[in-house]
Amino acid sequence: MESSDFVEIGEVFVKTDRTQGNMVILKRSEEDSHYFLMFVGDAEITAIAKEKGLVEPKRPLTHDIYLTILQRCGVAFEKIEIFEMRDNTFYAKIYARIDGESAVFDARPSDAVALALHEKCPIWVGRKLLRVELTAEEVQEFEMIVKTVKF
Amino acid sequence: MESSDFVEIGEVFVKTDRTQGNMVILKRSEEDSHYFLMFVGDAEITAIAKEKGLVEPKRPLTHDIYLTILQRCGVAFEKIEIFEMRDNTFYAKIYARIDGESAVFDARPSDAVALALHEKCPIWVGRKLLRVELTAEEVQEFEMIVKTVKF
Repeated sequence: MESSDFVEIGEVFVKTDRTQGNMVILKRSEEDSHYFLMFVGDAEITAIAKEKGLVEPKRPLTHDIYLTILQRCGVAFEKIEIFEMRDNTFYAKIYARIDGESAVFDARPSDAVALALHEKCPIWVGRKLLRVELTAEEVQEFEMIVKTVKF
Repeated sequence: MESSDFVEIGEVFVKTDRTQGNMVILKRSEEDSHYFLMFVGDAEITAIAKEKGLVEPKRPLTHDIYLTILQRCGVAFEKIEIFEMRDNTFYAKIYARIDGESAVFDARPSDAVALALHEKCPIWVGRKLLRVELTAEEVQEFEMIVKTVKF
C-alpha cells in the first residue's frame, strides 16, 4: 500500500458523551476538516486520556505494566496503522523492532493508539477511513438541496 | 518473606453482581474455606473471564496483544504474587525471566491474575490477605453471641 493511502495523525482528542459513549478523534492537525472517529470502552478511553495527561490513575494501567516489561526487553515501537474497517470494526497494526528484526502485530485501534501515545511513535490512519466535517457553506448547500426535494 | 507466608491458588472464580460489581475470588481449592476477594473493573473481569473460557471477545484484548509481543520477545513468566494491602488497595508482583535474567514488576492484581491465567503460571496470595468463610456451626455460634448482647 502506498504511503499516500495513509495520513499521519498530529492530534488525538477524547470525548465522553453520556448518550453516545467514549469517542477518540484523530486528525492530521486541529484545523483539518478530515477526521477519524472511533468509539471505545471505559478502560481504553482511560488509557488514552492518561497518555494525554487528562487523568492520573492511582495505579499503573494494563498498558503501563506491559510497556514497562517490553521496555526491559528492549522492544522499540516504530509506528501504528489503523488500516481497515470490516463489519463495522476497525483494525490496526503495531510495527515493532525486536532484537533488530521487524515484527508486525494485529491490535485493536484503541490499544494501538494508547501504545503509540505512550511510546511517542507515529500514528497513521488509512485515508479512506477519514470522515469530513462539512463547512458552513456545505451545510447550507445541503439544506438548499433538501428543500427542493418533493414528497 | 518465607514461602509459608503465601498460599498457591488452585481456583479462580469470577462473579458479577449488579449492586456489588465485579468480583474475583481466589482459593487454594474449591472446598477451602479461606479465600481472597477483590473487586475489579469491566475490562479486567472480561480479561479474566476470557482466560477461564467464560466469554469469547470478538477482538484480542489488551492483554492478548501485549502477551503476543512478549512471547515473540521470549519472555517467560514464572509466577505472580498478590502480597500486600495498603490504603484499601491490593498490590501484586509479576516475576519474569528476560534473556535468562530474573525481573520483577509491580502490577495491579487484576492484571497479574489475567496474565497468570493466560501464561499458565502460578498465582500466590499472601496468607494474611485471605478471608475465612464461616462454617454453619460458626454462623450459629455468632448468632448465639449476638442474641446475648443487651441493648
